[in-house]
Amino acid sequence: MRHLISMLLQNEAGALARVAGLFASRGYNIESLTVAATQDVDASRLTLVVFGDDAVVEQIVKQSAKLVDVIEIADVSGSDHVERELLVARTDAGGEAVDACLSRFGGRLLHRSAGQSVVEYTGCARDVDAFLIALRLSGHILDHARSGIATIAQPLVAA
Amino acid sequence: MRHLISMLLQNEAGALARVAGLFASRGYNIESLTVAATQDVDASRLTLVVFGDDAVVEQIVKQSAKLVDVIEIADVSGSDHVERELLVARTDAGGEAVDACLSRFGGRLLHRSAGQSVVEYTGCARDVDAFLIALRLSGHILDHARSGIATIAQPLVAA
Repeated sequence: MRHLISMLLQNEAGALARVAGLFASRGYNIESLTVAATQDVDASRLTLVVFGDDAVVEQIVKQSAKLVDVIEIADVSGSDHVERELLVARTDAGGEAVDACLSRFGGRLLHRSAGQSVVEYTGCARDVDAFLIALRLSGHILDHARSGIATIAQPLVAA
Repeated sequence: MRHLISMLLQNEAGALARVAGLFASRGYNIESLTVAATQDVDASRLTLVVFGDDAVVEQIVKQSAKLVDVIEIADVSGSDHVERELLVARTDAGGEAVDACLSRFGGRLLHRSAGQSVVEYTGCARDVDAFLIALRLSGHILDHARSGIATIAQPLVAA
């Protein structure tokens, strides 16, 4: 099963390596991971996606919670949350086809010149997959980077 | 100096831990890091930001290039590139103030209910900082997550 794990990590050299090492020691490959600053200069927010047996992932989460670098940790897969990923891509597809794709999915053109477009798109991981497939139907994707999932708790009714 | 390092990594348990470990072993704290899938199921794109002495970072990059998991690696800080980061935030600021902020910066409303708004914004790291400051002027930021920088090479003239 897919697990989305969110943690608050102390900003220390080695904190990320220790967390990643815990997953690696169980042979678990991290599907995506983002770590970035928070409002607290001493802490970073780390979000990772891992596929694996529920019981084993639960065990790794419990072990991670014991690491001195981990301030808080939660497997948010089962609870309400907002899940978004950023994609940046460069394509040689024709301008009109790219524009149609952007307008259909709600993406954004960042640059265009010399027959190439650089676009950005945000959505859940499945939306990003769908956008990439649509873009690929119009031309080659020359380069692209995904950010991995960023998530926050969402105890709200959709607008 | 700030370094933006982009690498293609083999999809293997432990690859991320080894790369993160190399930076940690030199006492370097990774400011932000994103790792996610690519078109090649066997490889992930990893992008990290680290502040540090040019010569030392160059040395760590060279050492990383020797890791069996690292397919390619480049410090793209000095070359043309597109740099974007995703922010998801929940705020208790009034709807009108949030809408004004979104419209001024080009952000997006994801959800709104019970006096709270969940918004998303993409831009370079400095833009994300500015958006967060503007949002904070209107109310409390109850929760937020940044994706860290995603980057692609950009040998193009701006549109």
